[in-house]
Amino acid sequence: MTLRSARILLAKRPVGLPTEDIYAFDEVDVPSVGEGRALVRNLYLALDPAIRGWMNESKGSYMPPIGVGEPVRSGNVSQVVESRIPGIEPGQIYQTLAAWEQFSVLDARSFHGRVETEPGVPVRSAVHLFGGSGLTAYFGLFDVGRPKAGETVVVSAASGSVGSLVGQMAKNAGARAVGITGGKDKARWLVDELGFDAAIDHRSEDLRVALKAACPKGVDVYFDSVGGEILDTVLGRINVGARVALCGAIASINATAPVPGPRNYVHLIAKRGCMQGFVTIDYMQRYPEARSAIATWVREGKLRYHEDVTKGLSNAPRSFLRLFDGTHRGKLMIELSEPEGM
Amino acid sequence: MTLRSARILLAKRPVGLPTEDIYAFDEVDVPSVGEGRALVRNLYLALDPAIRGWMNESKGSYMPPIGVGEPVRSGNVSQVVESRIPGIEPGQIYQTLAAWEQFSVLDARSFHGRVETEPGVPVRSAVHLFGGSGLTAYFGLFDVGRPKAGETVVVSAASGSVGSLVGQMAKNAGARAVGITGGKDKARWLVDELGFDAAIDHRSEDLRVALKAACPKGVDVYFDSVGGEILDTVLGRINVGARVALCGAIASINATAPVPGPRNYVHLIAKRGCMQGFVTIDYMQRYPEARSAIATWVREGKLRYHEDVTKGLSNAPRSFLRLFDGTHRGKLMIELSEPEGM
Repeated sequence: MTLRSARILLAKRPVGLPTEDIYAFDEVDVPSVGEGRALVRNLYLALDPAIRGWMNESKGSYMPPIGVGEPVRSGNVSQVVESRIPGIEPGQIYQTLAAWEQFSVLDARSFHGRVETEPGVPVRSAVHLFGGSGLTAYFGLFDVGRPKAGETVVVSAASGSVGSLVGQMAKNAGARAVGITGGKDKARWLVDELGFDAAIDHRSEDLRVALKAACPKGVDVYFDSVGGEILDTVLGRINVGARVALCGAIASINATAPVPGPRNYVHLIAKRGCMQGFVTIDYMQRYPEARSAIATWVREGKLRYHEDVTKGLSNAPRSFLRLFDGTHRGKLMIELSEPEGM
Repeated sequence: MTLRSARILLAKRPVGLPTEDIYAFDEVDVPSVGEGRALVRNLYLALDPAIRGWMNESKGSYMPPIGVGEPVRSGNVSQVVESRIPGIEPGQIYQTLAAWEQFSVLDARSFHGRVETEPGVPVRSAVHLFGGSGLTAYFGLFDVGRPKAGETVVVSAASGSVGSLVGQMAKNAGARAVGITGGKDKARWLVDELGFDAAIDHRSEDLRVALKAACPKGVDVYFDSVGGEILDTVLGRINVGARVALCGAIASINATAPVPGPRNYVHLIAKRGCMQGFVTIDYMQRYPEARSAIATWVREGKLRYHEDVTKGLSNAPRSFLRLFDGTHRGKLMIELSEPEGM
């Protein structure tokens, strides 16, 4: 009997926020598994802002764009059904680079590490804790930001899946963590539940004034996922030797008109500051190191996480939009299926 | 008999380009030389864009602003007249951080290295070759830009005192050197006289198109002294792992309205690029290394330089303006006095 797989395709490229008409739904026969490939059942799909970037017809990105007519690419947690790749066995669960579809046939490069279950941590948490979000937070903070004990680390999009981990990891490194988020409830959550030293609601507060109050000794490390005015304002308060880790630019990602660049980049000169971009997949050889550190922190209660899970493939487009409207906390994900045989 | 010293003071802070009325001229008795200080005769004054920055009432710069009513600060070449600093002897010539004045009484920290005369190199060349310009080019290029053989190095303000050295140093490191300058004659000079691989006149050419033609393999290192649109355009063509050394922002330095920030900073993300500011005085311990390398290149004919010398202290304000109008090549300087006893 042939397996059938429901999929969501990119029917056309979005302009601005993705609308429903950029997607097409179909169902296809799952192809047979060729040599050097494996068939997986996708269990959980990570909804990441990066997907919006891949929807653009951009050259010069770190990955080719999603082709029009192809399934929407995503980081998933997947369980192996059949394998012709040595070392990958049916029943095993992996981080994968796959798509918004029930089943995928992948080559070895699309397997980004096996999911080791942690006591008390649901398998789905691998999609972010040990997947894109956790790895991005870890390498962006420690390799690009390089916080020292006692320094002040500021993170934007702080209640998102990456930012909420960055602030806690900064605390674990002995630094002071300040989060910038949109909404009073989210700001309170960062301080009360996640242990940030301070949090700023940029929607109700004057960011420049609030930043000065929250960072009386200036900013040593800034982990930026938004760009735009927030980046510009934080650059105005950096200390000598500051490191700005550029993770993304949500302010630009759906913009239909150019977003102004950061005028305060000039502060980098007198402050000998460094603004550096990074891409998590460059660190693939070191994923085990990051996952081991993350697992330890989770076990010790030093890394808390929050998930916003929606069931069903057909809900992916609507949930994906919530990345950009400020209504979520922690990780947005789609659950397609529970793991089998666990 | 008391020595008299003519001086040029900052009478008020400029708005935009410095106008004549921001200066005051006076003449004072040279004070007696206290313990730990030395009296110097200033021979040559370097006219640097940094001076314009020091004229602003800015906090958070790497040096305090020039006080209103104080002499205009500058990097000079000076000859010692009288010394109460151990190791500094009358007749010796030094790089100094002094001012637009005939005589200065300085403490030890204002002496930035002894001028060693090179055969065939006039003493005045120390003001730039072995002073601010040469050191800025050397550390900005090699410590921040870090060009490898075969890489493409782009430098803006390329016919200025720093830029003209940066391009030649990049060539000496085996890289390809591309200069951006304002004017066809200056562009031709960079290629024909200084050995740049290509030069772009941003006034008559479309920079984006010309940059693509001059850098078919993209940009690995960009040494930026101007900011503004030029920085933005070059950021649009960086390669993976590119380094942008931020030396200054001439486009902003006299601006009375905010200059837009570089929108293309987002390219730093996918390209894993680094944009880093630097300040030359941080490298003071390593000035001898740089001066030795520069002397070797000059001896071997691998570093050519051009000077635009005006005599007389009273001409300093007018010559200083020429830094910003594109009419000079190489180093702008004021000659006050020839060295004595040489």
